[in-house]
Amino acid sequence: MEALRCLPGVGPKSASRMAFHLVERDRVGAERLAHALLAAAEGVRHCRRCRNLSEAELCSVCADPARDASLLCVVETPADVLAIEQATGFRGQYFVLMGRLSPLDGIGPSELGLDRLEARLDEGQVRELILATNPTVEGEATAHYLAMLARERGIRSTRIAHGVPMGGELEYIDGGTLAHAFSGRREV
Amino acid sequence: MEALRCLPGVGPKSASRMAFHLVERDRVGAERLAHALLAAAEGVRHCRRCRNLSEAELCSVCADPARDASLLCVVETPADVLAIEQATGFRGQYFVLMGRLSPLDGIGPSELGLDRLEARLDEGQVRELILATNPTVEGEATAHYLAMLARERGIRSTRIAHGVPMGGELEYIDGGTLAHAFSGRREV
Repeated sequence: MEALRCLPGVGPKSASRMAFHLVERDRVGAERLAHALLAAAEGVRHCRRCRNLSEAELCSVCADPARDASLLCVVETPADVLAIEQATGFRGQYFVLMGRLSPLDGIGPSELGLDRLEARLDEGQVRELILATNPTVEGEATAHYLAMLARERGIRSTRIAHGVPMGGELEYIDGGTLAHAFSGRREV
Repeated sequence: MEALRCLPGVGPKSASRMAFHLVERDRVGAERLAHALLAAAEGVRHCRRCRNLSEAELCSVCADPARDASLLCVVETPADVLAIEQATGFRGQYFVLMGRLSPLDGIGPSELGLDRLEARLDEGQVRELILATNPTVEGEATAHYLAMLARERGIRSTRIAHGVPMGGELEYIDGGTLAHAFSGRREV
């Protein structure tokens, strides 16, 4: 039970429920989970090229020759890569910051591996840098900084669209998003 | 209590709580509410020009000479007008559909007053038609229909931006919105 509490969202009650379930009813599942955890804890590292989580030295996206190296999408976390892979037909490559610029927390360009990103931009293959950081204050600041890096090298940078979410209703959207959606309207 | 139940979201319990509160502790409030309801039920009608709710024949926006008549924003409901007025610095005028195209429910162009909208576009003052219907299936279909009306008259039409809401996180956004935000990315 004590060990299970390291899982996010698991308190004492859930931990004891999980522990009893595994011990009383699913010992095979418990063993499989143990092996998977060991393998992950030992084997998962960061892709040398994009900093995403990966078991090999190069992640599956970076290792895939069919992916378009001229499109580079910058995201904050590996979960964002997963979301984009599942939702869109994006066929380019990624760079995972593993965070966002946050000077107050001591997170600057070097903590985000931006030297590696700069080196990659300098290679000359990237033609479009897609800034897919979150539309939070820190995510926006990070996007601005990255856009500057791209501009210095004459590379085009684009920002994913912000506005009313699909299926949403104007009436219930927050004012900031509505103002953004309004000023960012596009020709039909 | 029975009469209070006509309010949306008010069930038997809330109705009895409200009724007792008004009778036991706030008779003045009850009277003021009664007068306001009578005045609203008798006096509120639709603005002759934009179909928004209004007490006068022309609503305050249509009657204001300072508003820019060359920008016309089409919304589904009066609540949308309120949201846009509060959130954005929009200084143009509105047209309120009081619904959206929905052939299955028998709501076609004439129910939405599109003849009046067409007449207004024919006046020649409008230079940009801003389509601010909701990003739902029916709202999108309505926007397409309206864009067609604008195109026939050589008027520019724009759609408010759709994408990740401000402050949102890519990881938790639905796939449709993320795909839309990705394909709708813009130059920084």
